[in-house]
Amino acid sequence: MEEDVEGGYLGPYQEKLRTFPNMCTKPQTPWIIQLLMGINVRVLLMLLLLVFGGIFYIGACTSPVIVFVFTVCIFSFLLSVFLAKWVLSKDEGPPEMAEISDAIRDGAEGFFRTQYGSISKMAILLAFLILFIYLFRDSTPQQESSGLGRSTSAYITVASFLLGAICSGIAGYIGMWVSVRANVRVSSAARRSAREALQVAVRAGGFSALVVVGMAVVGISVLYAVLYVGLGVNTPGGVKVTELPLLMVGYGFGASFVALFAQLGGGIYTKAADVGADLVGKVEQGIPEDDPRNPAVIADLVGDNVGDCAARGADLFESIAAEIISAMILGGTMAHHCKIEDPSGFILFPLVVHSFDLVVSSVGILSIRGPGKAGVKAVMEDPMEILQKGYSVSIVLAVIAFAASTRWMLYTEKAPSAWLNFALCGLVGIMTAYVFVWITKYYTDYKHGPVRALALSSSTGHGTNIIAGVSLGLESTALPVLVISVSIISAFWLGHTSGLVDESGHPIGGLFGTAVATMGMLSTAAYILTMDMFGPIADNAGGIVEMSQQPESVREITDLLDAVGNTTKATTKGFAIGSAALASFLLFSAYMDEVAAFAHEPFKQVDIAIPEVFVGGLLGSMLIFVFSAWACSAVGRTAQEVVTEVRRQFIERPGIMDYKERPDYGRCVAIVASASLREMIKPGALAIVSPIAIGFIFKILGHYTGHPLLGAKVVAAMLMFATVSGILMALFLNTAGGAWDNAKKYIETGVLGGKGSECHKAAVTGDTVGDPFKDTAGPSLHVLIKMLSTITLVMAPIFL
Amino acid sequence: MEEDVEGGYLGPYQEKLRTFPNMCTKPQTPWIIQLLMGINVRVLLMLLLLVFGGIFYIGACTSPVIVFVFTVCIFSFLLSVFLAKWVLSKDEGPPEMAEISDAIRDGAEGFFRTQYGSISKMAILLAFLILFIYLFRDSTPQQESSGLGRSTSAYITVASFLLGAICSGIAGYIGMWVSVRANVRVSSAARRSAREALQVAVRAGGFSALVVVGMAVVGISVLYAVLYVGLGVNTPGGVKVTELPLLMVGYGFGASFVALFAQLGGGIYTKAADVGADLVGKVEQGIPEDDPRNPAVIADLVGDNVGDCAARGADLFESIAAEIISAMILGGTMAHHCKIEDPSGFILFPLVVHSFDLVVSSVGILSIRGPGKAGVKAVMEDPMEILQKGYSVSIVLAVIAFAASTRWMLYTEKAPSAWLNFALCGLVGIMTAYVFVWITKYYTDYKHGPVRALALSSSTGHGTNIIAGVSLGLESTALPVLVISVSIISAFWLGHTSGLVDESGHPIGGLFGTAVATMGMLSTAAYILTMDMFGPIADNAGGIVEMSQQPESVREITDLLDAVGNTTKATTKGFAIGSAALASFLLFSAYMDEVAAFAHEPFKQVDIAIPEVFVGGLLGSMLIFVFSAWACSAVGRTAQEVVTEVRRQFIERPGIMDYKERPDYGRCVAIVASASLREMIKPGALAIVSPIAIGFIFKILGHYTGHPLLGAKVVAAMLMFATVSGILMALFLNTAGGAWDNAKKYIETGVLGGKGSECHKAAVTGDTVGDPFKDTAGPSLHVLIKMLSTITLVMAPIFL
Repeated sequence: MEEDVEGGYLGPYQEKLRTFPNMCTKPQTPWIIQLLMGINVRVLLMLLLLVFGGIFYIGACTSPVIVFVFTVCIFSFLLSVFLAKWVLSKDEGPPEMAEISDAIRDGAEGFFRTQYGSISKMAILLAFLILFIYLFRDSTPQQESSGLGRSTSAYITVASFLLGAICSGIAGYIGMWVSVRANVRVSSAARRSAREALQVAVRAGGFSALVVVGMAVVGISVLYAVLYVGLGVNTPGGVKVTELPLLMVGYGFGASFVALFAQLGGGIYTKAADVGADLVGKVEQGIPEDDPRNPAVIADLVGDNVGDCAARGADLFESIAAEIISAMILGGTMAHHCKIEDPSGFILFPLVVHSFDLVVSSVGILSIRGPGKAGVKAVMEDPMEILQKGYSVSIVLAVIAFAASTRWMLYTEKAPSAWLNFALCGLVGIMTAYVFVWITKYYTDYKHGPVRALALSSSTGHGTNIIAGVSLGLESTALPVLVISVSIISAFWLGHTSGLVDESGHPIGGLFGTAVATMGMLSTAAYILTMDMFGPIADNAGGIVEMSQQPESVREITDLLDAVGNTTKATTKGFAIGSAALASFLLFSAYMDEVAAFAHEPFKQVDIAIPEVFVGGLLGSMLIFVFSAWACSAVGRTAQEVVTEVRRQFIERPGIMDYKERPDYGRCVAIVASASLREMIKPGALAIVSPIAIGFIFKILGHYTGHPLLGAKVVAAMLMFATVSGILMALFLNTAGGAWDNAKKYIETGVLGGKGSECHKAAVTGDTVGDPFKDTAGPSLHVLIKMLSTITLVMAPIFL
Repeated sequence: MEEDVEGGYLGPYQEKLRTFPNMCTKPQTPWIIQLLMGINVRVLLMLLLLVFGGIFYIGACTSPVIVFVFTVCIFSFLLSVFLAKWVLSKDEGPPEMAEISDAIRDGAEGFFRTQYGSISKMAILLAFLILFIYLFRDSTPQQESSGLGRSTSAYITVASFLLGAICSGIAGYIGMWVSVRANVRVSSAARRSAREALQVAVRAGGFSALVVVGMAVVGISVLYAVLYVGLGVNTPGGVKVTELPLLMVGYGFGASFVALFAQLGGGIYTKAADVGADLVGKVEQGIPEDDPRNPAVIADLVGDNVGDCAARGADLFESIAAEIISAMILGGTMAHHCKIEDPSGFILFPLVVHSFDLVVSSVGILSIRGPGKAGVKAVMEDPMEILQKGYSVSIVLAVIAFAASTRWMLYTEKAPSAWLNFALCGLVGIMTAYVFVWITKYYTDYKHGPVRALALSSSTGHGTNIIAGVSLGLESTALPVLVISVSIISAFWLGHTSGLVDESGHPIGGLFGTAVATMGMLSTAAYILTMDMFGPIADNAGGIVEMSQQPESVREITDLLDAVGNTTKATTKGFAIGSAALASFLLFSAYMDEVAAFAHEPFKQVDIAIPEVFVGGLLGSMLIFVFSAWACSAVGRTAQEVVTEVRRQFIERPGIMDYKERPDYGRCVAIVASASLREMIKPGALAIVSPIAIGFIFKILGHYTGHPLLGAKVVAAMLMFATVSGILMALFLNTAGGAWDNAKKYIETGVLGGKGSECHKAAVTGDTVGDPFKDTAGPSLHVLIKMLSTITLVMAPIFL
């Protein structure tokens, strides 16, 4: 079906594509982002360094560990500045490439501004709600005894919520900022050598990964240090250090709040544009992907940046933040019960782990080298292998670093061998990450049986392809669940037998063991994020190459990188959902502790044999189903608008197909942008409102039926059932989507009739269905299940 | 696309189609079914009556209530004999109709024999396993004190398991027996008048519904009476009457075991044949549904009988049995704790409710009258309205009967107004049933918004149609879950405030209130089952009319009935899943009681904050996902075999399309039959083995980690999470499937391009995908979640 481009009439690209209506309307942009965007990058970095110097002093008053963390973070920021400068120093290629890249950048930045404008408005509203709730709630006896008044804790929670939200927003912006600049440089480098293109994409991804992880660590460290000094920890009558982490849950909630809307809006944007472009371009008109004649092609390329780069940056930022805070809470609680003389080791351990993460991932990123001094086109290795080698380097270093940090931070004389057990927990986590990546590959890579069977099922039509894909996705939940089960139980058991006991001699290290395993899983997060960011940058580079009509050899290179990017994107999702599962289990325990603290009574059990609690579980699972439904249908509806628009343009401007008329890219960008902003509200609001409403309603019900703590119990059940259903649903959606995508790619290699056959058409249908599954609903569910955990933690006072 | 049939060459149908290889192989048929099939129907009924006479005596020794139940059941059996004779007295129409009907009957009976042969072998194996487990387990202190030894309870459990299995098998057989005979009579009646055709179909459905419900009631009553007399209840030192129901759980398990495999095998059969026939016939060749030229058409029609009639008979039999037994257990436990002098009222209440069910449903069935004395073709009312009128009659009577039975059975001087609360619980249940039916209609009927939006989404292609359908299905879980939540909580609260208290004055009627609501929901089960059976009979009649090339007017009548049948089938599924949700909640409580009895310690809580218990929940939800995957992929794989075979026949015998060559129907039937028997094993085994394996593994783990009852707790969590996920998944699958089907039908009415348009093709893809969702995986999940409850009840001893 692929028509050769003849004539090479490139006229339309001589004009600058700078008109994106409804996108750059300044009044919608909040001043913070305006300010940040107005500042020169170097000035911004200098400012950051200055602020660092200021808080360094506070850190020094707190703990040498904090100083260590700050130092590592500063070095990694410096490295990321180097990476960014290195990437930006690369050339932008011929003018036609730069023009397309400019159009993509304008579209992405315009959408980002509008989207984050809406998100920040909602965040401010929510901040007022939190303030209101905290000002009128009871404080815990411990807080009262340590003089931490109602209003202090209210302001702390709101401030940490806003800090988390802002950091998450910056993380998303950084992800997008670099990708819209790196895409064209990768395209340009691909004209010279594959190896160089790979290196540019990896270093661009590495830049944002280091910034995202570094910012999560620095944000929490600063918050910790400021609270430590401000509340006079360890002074007589002051707050105990073990209580600090619980004050920081607002940070996690802020991060996940922003990440949820970023992922929803971006996910809807990218897939609506993609599905819409494919349905008319590929299926109806038979033109290739990213063909310049398709009016939705710029919107599709913009989508990669706002959906994959920005949203995934916010997603992983939030994962790391939530996991650090929950592990700090559990470490603090445990150290408190064990009466360990200096509990700060257990509390600060997660920060150390992620500092080492920055180091080992940096080594991994830098280990991917360019084409060498000669600079000539060498024979290309498989890019996947190069990335895997870098991953192996990181992971070997991570194991060593993890063992060292457990010995440093978790050694206590109360249980001299406990650190060894925790090191093993970390190993369990690292292995879990490895196995997860392997399982995802098995189910989504066409080298293996499942995708091949899926491709074969396309030969009997659209219907059997969909049935087979749905079955594959549902079945693929089995192995990850078994792996997660084994790692939860074994990490718990390792922690349990670590020798740490409470006052009455009961072993209590189990939950912290699970927390350490989660940290182990995330101990190479920066490298994983680098691989993830690599995908959309390569995808965009391919689009720019295709649109600017480069020779076949250049396209081959970007196609190769794009295919590798698809695989890394799929495996990162497996990794993300695995760590989300573990993190949610931890946050659930933190929630139980929080409720117990507020309720002035033990809250150790959630008994699902109580009808209301069972109903809470039902509602929790339902929430996942309805949320997924709304996320998918948002894509479907928006894609239909795109289809109608693209069809209209093809009919009204018949010259488009002969390159004689220029399609109106801006209109598609505007349609997708406004539709995705509209559509992200409904599922987002559902996610925020349901836990609050359920908790509040059952609190009232419990009050009238003489059932204390009913609201808290129902919310706990809701949380657990939502987590379990969410994990399974996300695994289903991600894997089915990835498998459909690759089944199509497998057929495109020439088997079963190859491109253009009936079999291929059926496979394209599967791919279309898989798009919102794997890039909208699936990743949004990762964020949702963590956001549910953090929102219930923060909102716990109103369930009581 | 519909080609008019010219020439009317009917040659192929002059030969009898009696060769179905691999189907009638006698050695595979168990002797019981052979014997039953060898006996003349009247002799069989006489024998049944004789047996009734014998057990009537035992019943009389037990309780007057049992005598009442027996009497009602005998009358309803007599009525069902009358209905069967009435249906069979109708003419079979012209010879070409009778021949097609014979071919369908042979195919269905052959499959039934082979299928139930395999099932009975597995049942016998399982019976030995149960015997083994029970002979080596501990007995409860109560059992020991009442002299109920280990071996006695082992034999009772095994015997009731086998009785349940046999009764369920007979229920399935009866459902199929009447439908393969009624289909041709409906076709024939349709040549005279729509009203008569409707009446024949309703009465045929009514016959099997009355037999199915009657047999569930009689089976349990007989078991109860025999155990009552045999174990010397109420004699000094004998078993207490409140302990009897717990001995009968084997009956429920036997019923659900057979129903699971009946539904799986039948469901795979019917949808593989349907999808296979449609993919080649409708989509590739453009011939209408049920066209005689399609080699898979007989297999498709056979499928309606084995998949819909036989399997749904077994399904509802099992629902009623499980619900009666769990309500009896809860009633007994409550009466025991309340120290009510005569607890038999609370125990026998479910039997009375279902006796009244037989009466009110009979009235409803008989209220649907024929075309009147004149017998001429009158103006046809909407058949849906006629069926709805009958339902209204039944439901009004059911409310009255329910109130009367609560007053009769549940009046106790301890709490004089308790019966009124329970009557209100029943009303909650009846209303829940009504609302469920309404919600299902809203989401699956094309008179309403959702299906119309789905049809519209087909206009942008196959992909958007699937995305919209999946979203619709996922979203449709919300309202039913809210309704179920409200009814569980309100029924629990009504029961809780009924005034019944235990020794220490705590109100304990809550769970029984939920049980009464479940009974209320099922209080018109026989009428619901009649409407459900109506569907496949009408569908088959339509097929016979189409195949025997009747005039357009006759087809119009059967098409109308078929469309109504689709709606009633969809709404019955909503009803079935609602009652399954309530019944599972009850069985869960019964499981907790059972574990407490065996463990000699209270077992009141299942705490999901324990990691192993959380893992149990994860595994439970995973079970649902994998089971659904395997059920769907079984259909997909089998359909692919059918597609290959049908394509082969069209290529090798080009004369088929011109009616010059006769397709080899038998080969398709044989392929589908053997494939579906092979494919039902994997999901079935998963469902049986997982709970046993999980319970046993965690029992061992608990033993070594010093965690008593861990196995039982993990199984409890697995059960709850599986129930919740199962309800949601079944709702999703059923609704999405029904909506896709009707979106296609809506387009076929002529909107959006009508038949043959691109939009219609996309809608057909959706329909194909929906087939295994709504008729294989969805209904199998109903059975699965109840089977999980009964298997854990029976296997509880090995988890301890």
